[in-house]
Amino acid sequence: MNGAESLVRTLVAAGVTVCFTNPGTSEMHFVAALDRVEGMRCVLGLFEGVVTGAADGYWRMAQWPAATLLHLGPGLGNGLANLHNARKASSGIVNIVGEHATYHLQYDAPLTADIEGIARPVSHWVRTATEARKVAADGAEAIAVAATPPGHIATLVLPGDAAWGEGSGPAPLPPVPPRARVSEEAVRQAAALLRPGKGALLLLGGQAVWEEGLTWAGAIARHTGARLLAQMANARLQRGAGRVAVERVPFPVPQAVALLKDVQRVVLVAARPPVAFFAYPDRPSVLTPPGCTFHTLATPAEDALDALARLADAVGAQRRQAPLQPPWRPPLPTGPLTPEGAGAVLAHALPEQAIVVDESVTTGRGFFPLTAGAPPHDWLQNMGGSIGYGLPVAIGAAIACPQRKVLALVGDGSAMYTVQALWTMAREGLDVTVVIWANRTYQILKGEFANVGAGSPGVKARHMLDIDRPTLDWVAMAKAMGVPAARATDCETLLAQLRRGLAAPGPYLIEAVL
Amino acid sequence: MNGAESLVRTLVAAGVTVCFTNPGTSEMHFVAALDRVEGMRCVLGLFEGVVTGAADGYWRMAQWPAATLLHLGPGLGNGLANLHNARKASSGIVNIVGEHATYHLQYDAPLTADIEGIARPVSHWVRTATEARKVAADGAEAIAVAATPPGHIATLVLPGDAAWGEGSGPAPLPPVPPRARVSEEAVRQAAALLRPGKGALLLLGGQAVWEEGLTWAGAIARHTGARLLAQMANARLQRGAGRVAVERVPFPVPQAVALLKDVQRVVLVAARPPVAFFAYPDRPSVLTPPGCTFHTLATPAEDALDALARLADAVGAQRRQAPLQPPWRPPLPTGPLTPEGAGAVLAHALPEQAIVVDESVTTGRGFFPLTAGAPPHDWLQNMGGSIGYGLPVAIGAAIACPQRKVLALVGDGSAMYTVQALWTMAREGLDVTVVIWANRTYQILKGEFANVGAGSPGVKARHMLDIDRPTLDWVAMAKAMGVPAARATDCETLLAQLRRGLAAPGPYLIEAVL
Repeated sequence: MNGAESLVRTLVAAGVTVCFTNPGTSEMHFVAALDRVEGMRCVLGLFEGVVTGAADGYWRMAQWPAATLLHLGPGLGNGLANLHNARKASSGIVNIVGEHATYHLQYDAPLTADIEGIARPVSHWVRTATEARKVAADGAEAIAVAATPPGHIATLVLPGDAAWGEGSGPAPLPPVPPRARVSEEAVRQAAALLRPGKGALLLLGGQAVWEEGLTWAGAIARHTGARLLAQMANARLQRGAGRVAVERVPFPVPQAVALLKDVQRVVLVAARPPVAFFAYPDRPSVLTPPGCTFHTLATPAEDALDALARLADAVGAQRRQAPLQPPWRPPLPTGPLTPEGAGAVLAHALPEQAIVVDESVTTGRGFFPLTAGAPPHDWLQNMGGSIGYGLPVAIGAAIACPQRKVLALVGDGSAMYTVQALWTMAREGLDVTVVIWANRTYQILKGEFANVGAGSPGVKARHMLDIDRPTLDWVAMAKAMGVPAARATDCETLLAQLRRGLAAPGPYLIEAVL
Repeated sequence: MNGAESLVRTLVAAGVTVCFTNPGTSEMHFVAALDRVEGMRCVLGLFEGVVTGAADGYWRMAQWPAATLLHLGPGLGNGLANLHNARKASSGIVNIVGEHATYHLQYDAPLTADIEGIARPVSHWVRTATEARKVAADGAEAIAVAATPPGHIATLVLPGDAAWGEGSGPAPLPPVPPRARVSEEAVRQAAALLRPGKGALLLLGGQAVWEEGLTWAGAIARHTGARLLAQMANARLQRGAGRVAVERVPFPVPQAVALLKDVQRVVLVAARPPVAFFAYPDRPSVLTPPGCTFHTLATPAEDALDALARLADAVGAQRRQAPLQPPWRPPLPTGPLTPEGAGAVLAHALPEQAIVVDESVTTGRGFFPLTAGAPPHDWLQNMGGSIGYGLPVAIGAAIACPQRKVLALVGDGSAMYTVQALWTMAREGLDVTVVIWANRTYQILKGEFANVGAGSPGVKARHMLDIDRPTLDWVAMAKAMGVPAARATDCETLLAQLRRGLAAPGPYLIEAVL
């Protein structure tokens, strides 16, 4: 059994049963092993950003790593932006990156590059497997690193001769440490900070915005009078009717500063202190008022659910105190599509247990309150800020949860970065309904242009911010890649199309023209 | 004048008058400066691989750098693969990569990444501009590095506060060294190696495959009896009727080894010793026979044209001895499209001074001899092996040479990586005719699967090598991005469509179904 097959068997035995791939010559032995090993689902992407983003989405829902298979340094490079996003989301991924045979590197053939150097900025762990007999053990270690809470990026570089040389057979998975329990002292201090509720904020991220975490946090906030907020972006937030609704720290700095102006003490639960997404000349980087103090109840790596339950106990709050969101929907809007109308339509269309992958950018700023009372669903956001995450993450989520409906909400500018994802959705018959918000501009940048003090854009600057001329035809684009599609310009049509897309199996795309 | 404007003025004053961009918030001051500074053409790409590949194509034709404008680490990451290709092609590029304001980095906002770490594997020079007053000087140095023969990748990281802070005004361009003249000894040794012509090979790359270099090399080969070959891939090879035709080292190792089996002495002219593109278990990495000796007449950085002229003189060859290719075209083929038929059709369609950007991969293996006697044209190839270079490079070539027709020949698998390039072609009205070779498979990998000793692919492996199911509709894809398009399944239609595309201004796409 060669190194490649030993590695594939190691992955499958450890429960890594999905591999998102865009292979080349140097990965052919890995691909060949797929024919001999049962239990690995291989999903082809026509661009590596699709591959890495899909692995991110898979982890968010499965909480266990998928593998990627990438072609040397440039293939990894193409996947780098979505690995950045995955790293910021604390997603666990095992990257297998093909490499020239070790003895071939000295000749500096065209594809030769510093793969480890390219991997390092987005990886927690990087290793080149230099011996076929050790490849399986290297792979097992990579899986363990990736799966270690809260999730890590492990990159294994696989030279050709390590793949085709005689391997060891599968290697056992090293122990994966469970989430650490937070100390009594951490709970005690948090309780002390919250007791005088005024000025206290419970800021949630990671597992704390899952249903269980929100229930405890909601009970604690209700009991103590502390405020409750979620981070600006969250890897997976569980919400909807019957759950505790939570507002997020807003993106615009003035809004965030206003919202946080009375906060004096922040208890961080798998969250980080709120900071501005970008720097602006006359606005603060830190969003909380001067003198605000922070206490970490749980880091993203620790057991936030246990910590919140113990904190509730410490402050005397009971689970049943959690204020649960009643079912509610805004009035059904009519007429031409607006961001607000779109949000209200979403509230009416969202099915039970939907997975919403949100890359709506400016269009979606108001979606949260409008959909708060919709049937329970998961809401996934971009943690790393590199656009082009939405369509790929939807692929991974759909593969992790084949029984659930995935709704990908993506701005037209964002969707173009990884538009190849549509083809993979079609090939795999994934149950993803894609809504493209077609405002035909990098709308966010028009605001940011003024925010950074650059005034208002002139003719040449606007030419860099608008993406009309020519207009992207998303219906044609989807059909070109095998995804049925339609266009909506009013609220009624958007609702009808959403219902159609969500009812039918397989992917469907709606170009929502704003 | 702020740092950003000082930088833009520095670029324009140094002749860097094209900037390929995909900006974000941190680059808004650079974008704003475009409104205030005359003379910079800004070209928007909807994905960064388009941006960096376009800069590569621009250099190849203009021999002076263009700038790119990229959005922090992930934006640079998306451009990495085509920067790899550009680096291997010795193209000069000035990358401007936006970054958070220096004081904001400590907060590890979502887009914070190790930009220098991402840049280093593909850059010859990396610097972070930490002071607004020095940005212009940093930029001037970047331009000088990029323009230094044979062309280099210079990456300047531009933090927000360095862009919006008070700048110095434009900085002067430091001296750019000319190509060095090779030594008399290098010429003398080359002459000595060539004199007994049998077993001698003149291997050409870089400037040596431009018309002037080929003329001298052809005369030398004819006079001495040495053989003449070009590298496997070349950044820009000038060919066609009235020029010296040159064969290239083939990609398949057995063919290359057979072609080179009698070679004893190689004189390298801006070329590198021929090695296999990939390693294969039972095939050599070095393509020349054991014991073959190498002598470098000129490195890619040196003046190969002058060196060849002096070498001709040293061996007693005269320019008029160069064997010039007579005008010739293969018979016009008819019937269903095949790779051979396509090559013959190309020979009939190529207009005078066309720029052919070749990413035909397997489909194009036979194009060279079939088009050798077509009207004179330039032929650009992928030097770094990362597919997805063709459409972006065609953009850059078209912008550098607005009076010439650009023909981009791209495999369907390759074209998907940077498909967003079609939109930029439409927006800028570029005179590019794109032919997509639609064989609906990563055809090269089917051969490579066997070449690496993996046998023949089974069902699961074939699923990773075929890109049908669903079939990509390239006509719909092009139209979705504003490019008129048509399909050709036979030789007659391909010729008619090529003539139509090349005759009309602006972009045109032909899906050539094989």
